[in-house]
Amino acid sequence: MNDNKIGTYEFVAEPFHVDFSGQLTMSVLGNHFLNCAGFHASERGFGMGTLNEANYTWVLSRLAVELDDMPRQDERFAVRTWVENVYRLFTDRNFAVVDHEGRTIGYSRSIWAMIDMDTRKPADLLALHGGSIVDYVCDEPCPIEKPSRIKVSGGELVASLKAKYSDIDLNGHVNSVRYIEHVLDLFPLDTYKQQRVRRFEMAYVAESYFGDTLSFYRERVADDEYHVEVRKQGDEVVCRSRIVFEKKQ
Amino acid sequence: MNDNKIGTYEFVAEPFHVDFSGQLTMSVLGNHFLNCAGFHASERGFGMGTLNEANYTWVLSRLAVELDDMPRQDERFAVRTWVENVYRLFTDRNFAVVDHEGRTIGYSRSIWAMIDMDTRKPADLLALHGGSIVDYVCDEPCPIEKPSRIKVSGGELVASLKAKYSDIDLNGHVNSVRYIEHVLDLFPLDTYKQQRVRRFEMAYVAESYFGDTLSFYRERVADDEYHVEVRKQGDEVVCRSRIVFEKKQ
Repeated sequence: MNDNKIGTYEFVAEPFHVDFSGQLTMSVLGNHFLNCAGFHASERGFGMGTLNEANYTWVLSRLAVELDDMPRQDERFAVRTWVENVYRLFTDRNFAVVDHEGRTIGYSRSIWAMIDMDTRKPADLLALHGGSIVDYVCDEPCPIEKPSRIKVSGGELVASLKAKYSDIDLNGHVNSVRYIEHVLDLFPLDTYKQQRVRRFEMAYVAESYFGDTLSFYRERVADDEYHVEVRKQGDEVVCRSRIVFEKKQ
Repeated sequence: MNDNKIGTYEFVAEPFHVDFSGQLTMSVLGNHFLNCAGFHASERGFGMGTLNEANYTWVLSRLAVELDDMPRQDERFAVRTWVENVYRLFTDRNFAVVDHEGRTIGYSRSIWAMIDMDTRKPADLLALHGGSIVDYVCDEPCPIEKPSRIKVSGGELVASLKAKYSDIDLNGHVNSVRYIEHVLDLFPLDTYKQQRVRRFEMAYVAESYFGDTLSFYRERVADDEYHVEVRKQGDEVVCRSRIVFEKKQ
């Protein structure tokens, strides 16, 4: 029953997509997730292409990734994706990462809205193509917690940068994947030598643009857990992130 | 005769791999080139995998790219690659970019050395696998100029940054593709609104590492041409780049 509801896409961990330890980076995995969301939706008639014609586009609101392992350089792996829920203004899309031996090594949950490209206002998903997206809702399990409400009270300013040419996507915004990269760049190599990212979350709050000064405020909330708030021009929140590390074995 | 000498690899311009104007970025194209070099060499028995076993690895020394056009978001394109020359210490590898209509829209030339991973000294390519790489030398035309000798005399310090987690590859070095990105990030969005990069060159001189401070010195040598020198810790040259712009039509 779930066969046509789940999309499966194959990848190889490319040499320049792995980190110093030879593991695929979280930002590249995030990029694959977003591409798979696009492939899955397009193949079923509710992708960006179709929506753009109708003047609507998908906007990523939340992303949570939890992994037991990461593909290594040159290893094949697959990403599976499906829609878990459709509400009027949001839809929940999940992902699973399957390694070259067929083991599921991680999951991801994402929350998306659809907006009108002129008014930037959210659209009614249940009205889209006569609500046909609901036909793809799938009860495949996704045994990780939902994206949490990330709070950063205070936090230390640990980095700031100006959004540059290579940060900017076709919509003129700093792209969603770049924030993942910038947040993980807040930690020294030593952190990644001893620990791996077990869970990573991102809550996208507002857009930022070329030339914006992005400030990164970091708060350590537990031995192995950090919250990060990214602000533009010093005050307006752009996104928040939660990183949970785990000792490498 | 050249059939097995040329490798052809298919790609799609992914949404997060295009810039604000919807065109594939030079750094992503560079990444594809390096991957194709790897595929082509591996399939013919002189790739990294085989060499690593023999304790040797390929090192990119020069890259020159010249383009009439760039693939747009969601467009299919292909990269073709072949070996033009093999000398004792260097080999010339060329690339062609073919768009979704089968038009060749650009070419690239690259120069590689093979080094011993322990001594970091160059190895004799003509001795590698009994010189079998020579069997793949191919006379396919590549109608762009060879990489030039880039000189930066003086130049203005226009940016500086610390090498971060996401800059570092499996060898512990700032990866070759990242330099392309950092160099192109030296120009404002307005430059890319009015102009496109017709020719891009990179000469890799020395490695840089996590935490290194990279300084970018830029010199305008003609109306449409810039040279950039990247230095670490203020003085040692890491790489040099040449960017030739052309008015967008």
